[in-house]
Order: sequence, then C-alpha cells, then structure tokens
Amino acid sequence: MVSKAVTKYVHALHLKKYRLRHGAFLVEGGKSVLELLSSGLQTERVFVTAEFALKLPAQLAQSLVEVVSEDELTRLGTLATNNTALAIARLPAEPSLLPGATSGLFLALDQVRDPGNLGTLIRLADWYGLPGVVLSETCADPWAPKTVAATMGSFTRVPVWQRELPGWLSSLPAGLPVYGADLHGDNVHGLTLQPQGVLVMGSESHGLTPEVEACLTQRLHIPGRGQAESLNVAISAAILLDNFHRNG
Amino acid sequence: MVSKAVTKYVHALHLKKYRLRHGAFLVEGGKSVLELLSSGLQTERVFVTAEFALKLPAQLAQSLVEVVSEDELTRLGTLATNNTALAIARLPAEPSLLPGATSGLFLALDQVRDPGNLGTLIRLADWYGLPGVVLSETCADPWAPKTVAATMGSFTRVPVWQRELPGWLSSLPAGLPVYGADLHGDNVHGLTLQPQGVLVMGSESHGLTPEVEACLTQRLHIPGRGQAESLNVAISAAILLDNFHRNG
Repeated sequence: MVSKAVTKYVHALHLKKYRLRHGAFLVEGGKSVLELLSSGLQTERVFVTAEFALKLPAQLAQSLVEVVSEDELTRLGTLATNNTALAIARLPAEPSLLPGATSGLFLALDQVRDPGNLGTLIRLADWYGLPGVVLSETCADPWAPKTVAATMGSFTRVPVWQRELPGWLSSLPAGLPVYGADLHGDNVHGLTLQPQGVLVMGSESHGLTPEVEACLTQRLHIPGRGQAESLNVAISAAILLDNFHRNG
Repeated sequence: MVSKAVTKYVHALHLKKYRLRHGAFLVEGGKSVLELLSSGLQTERVFVTAEFALKLPAQLAQSLVEVVSEDELTRLGTLATNNTALAIARLPAEPSLLPGATSGLFLALDQVRDPGNLGTLIRLADWYGLPGVVLSETCADPWAPKTVAATMGSFTRVPVWQRELPGWLSSLPAGLPVYGADLHGDNVHGLTLQPQGVLVMGSESHGLTPEVEACLTQRLHIPGRGQAESLNVAISAAILLDNFHRNG
C-alpha cells in the first residue's frame, strides 16, 4: 500500500508548480522508466507491478522500489491505465548554455504549447543528435508527464533550456544562421543546408512571435503539391531537420 | 433544443458500427465543419452556436442548420468542449481503386491503429497531393471523430480505401515499386526517388505484418545521428515523402 503522504506527493507532481517546488518530475510507463534507470538522471522512487518488477535492472537499489497493484499504480499517475511502472525522478540542473554556443544545430521552439508536440520534437532532436532544444517561456513544460511520455525516452538524453527567445537569439554571435519555417521562404530542396546555427519553429496555430521572427536570417519553405494549408510543427521540423542532415 | 431522437443518433455516430449502419459520420470543430461545407461531401445537418452561425456560408440551406448552446454542442460530440460547430456528413462512396492504378505514389498503411496518427498521415497525403491512402483492415477507422479532426480538413480531399493489403499489393502490376521503411534499408539520402508506386508504412509498435513486408521491392532507411531508437510513423512518413518529392 502506498502511504497517503506519498500519494499526495506523487499527485502534486502532476502540476508544474509542485514539480518546481520539489525539484522532481514523474516518468510513467515501463519503457520510459527503464530509460530513466539506465540514464544519468537521478531516480527518487520507483513504483512497479509485481510482474514488471522482474524487468528492473538487477543493480537497482531495492530500497527505491515499491511493488504496488495495477490499480494503485493507475491512481498515482496521469495515464488512463498503467500496468508497468511509474518513477519519481529529480529535475536535472539546467546545463549552461553559452550565448556563443555555435557547435551544431540547436532547435528553438516558440510557443509550442502542446506537450505531445513538444515531446515529439525533443525526440526528433535526439534522432538527429542535436546539441539541445531551447524553449520560449510560453512552451509546454518539458517535464510535464505528457511531454516526458511523448519523448519516448529521449528526455534522458536531450538538453533542454527555457529562455526568453528574442533575447537569447540576439545574443548569438553575428553571422550565425537563424532559420525559420515560412510558407513564403526559400524552397529547402534548392538549398544545401549545414546543421549549424539555430532552427526556430513556432506552433502551427500561433506561428512565431514578431520579436522572434525579426531574429531570423533565413526563411525556409517545404514545398507541397496538394491543398493542405500547413503542416503540424513536429512534421515540419522533421522534414527540415532531414534536409539539414543530407550533406555529409 | 436538440430532440432526444437526434441526440441519440449523433451519439450513435461516435461508434464505427453505427457510422457504417447509418452511412454517416461526425465532423467536429468550426474549421473542419467549414471545410466540409465547402467540399463535395454531403452534409446532413449542422449544429452551431449562435456566434459561429455568422461564419456559415451564406448559400447554406437554413433547413440544415440548428443553433444550439455551447453546452448542448459539447454534449453531442466527443470533444472536451466545443463552442463552434458539429456536423453530420454522409460517408462518401468508396471510389474505385483499380489494381493497375499506377499514377503517382499511393500511401499504404499497415496496422496504424492510432486515429491521431492516421489523421496526420491523411493530411500529409493531402500536402503532397498523393492520389490516395490505402488502409489495412487493422487500421483505425478513417471516419472516427478523432481521425477526422486530426486530418485538419484533409478528410474532404484525400481518397481513402480499406483493403486486405497483401492481396492488394500482390495485384499491382509487376515492376511497380513498393517501398517500405526499414532501419536496415537503403539510405534515402543516397537515392533519387520518384513519386510513383506505393509507400507502405507500419505502426511504430507493430511494424509491418510479414505478409506485407514480403511485398516490398525496396526498403528505405532514414539516417539519424543520435540515440533515439525509432521515429513515430507520421514523422517517418513525412521525411520519406519529402525525399520522394525533391526531384522535379
């Protein structure tokens, strides 16, 4: 039986305010919990069903583990059902992000409020081995349970920063390219892009804020042939990132 | 006030069984309803809030329209809230799909059970102007409310068929390329692909069924550089489709 105090603590971590206050976040589902346990992130506690307990790494300190029923596990978390695992992890300290950090292509996200989209974008950054993702303060919380779930484990590997984006973009070395998606931009198929600089993506419904748009040095357009008006932000980012990684 | 009989009918259309029985489906949200009304699909009935009624096309027969409260609208549909519109549309007759239909690139989906992914894929097919999407019988229902919503209006433009996929693929003319995504396939960046033939995508968790995989003539790999194990099916499809549309 999970104690009342622990239940209350886990439920508090459903909310950003308490994640910040306690410096902790939730990881739900067996696959994500296993990724957490094999990462450098610190785990506070793991709740598992008896069946899933058999899949935990042998070297895991047993004092961290509590075996619970499927019902208890489901009641602790945010998923409709959970028959595997839920963990409490420590929020990692934000790595330093030098304004002059010019190695590789950073993904910057402006007003991406949907945690599912944000998680998918963090996963894409992992796929392409990007040095990290910089979020505007208006983005979804990268440590929300839905975001963490959508990263499919990439939350353990991709550095994420929250920054006032126009300020951060203006602080970058002169000459560093800042790319953005734009229906009236240059056709990406006609360009030879190198994964260097910053690619800024806005949400489909809100687009880029004018102050962020003013920082772009090149606008990129993904040519379509049909009648759909636009693409989802994660889909657009995937296509653009593939175009950045074609050459060498 | 919506009558009890109409409420019962609309609620029945939440379920596939009754959509098939009545030959009708639901379209939820203002943007999707406006797309429906400007399409060739047949509309049975439109429920709107007084505010959204002002946005309806002037030529719409008033006998089709019922103005309701936001609460009533929300109770009719599947969304958490709806303050715009909900429509009942007739299921379109399935267009004929000749086995020899070899013009353009068809997207075929095997076991894509998530309606959000399916809708995103239909929208992608629209973006790239594909001739249509062929679904295995194990895919999500293309006329489920969640699928329709995720197409963002593309449900009005993209022909969709449900077929026993191995049978359909085997019936294609010899020599027509059948592509599939595979981590061990050919690097797409090294190929010059033409949008001709069939691109088959499986779900991330289930992959392609062996019978479908046996029909592939070329396996395609999207090169990544990081540590993510795989990509979501809609993300992979987007990157592959962009690679098919680079040349000419």
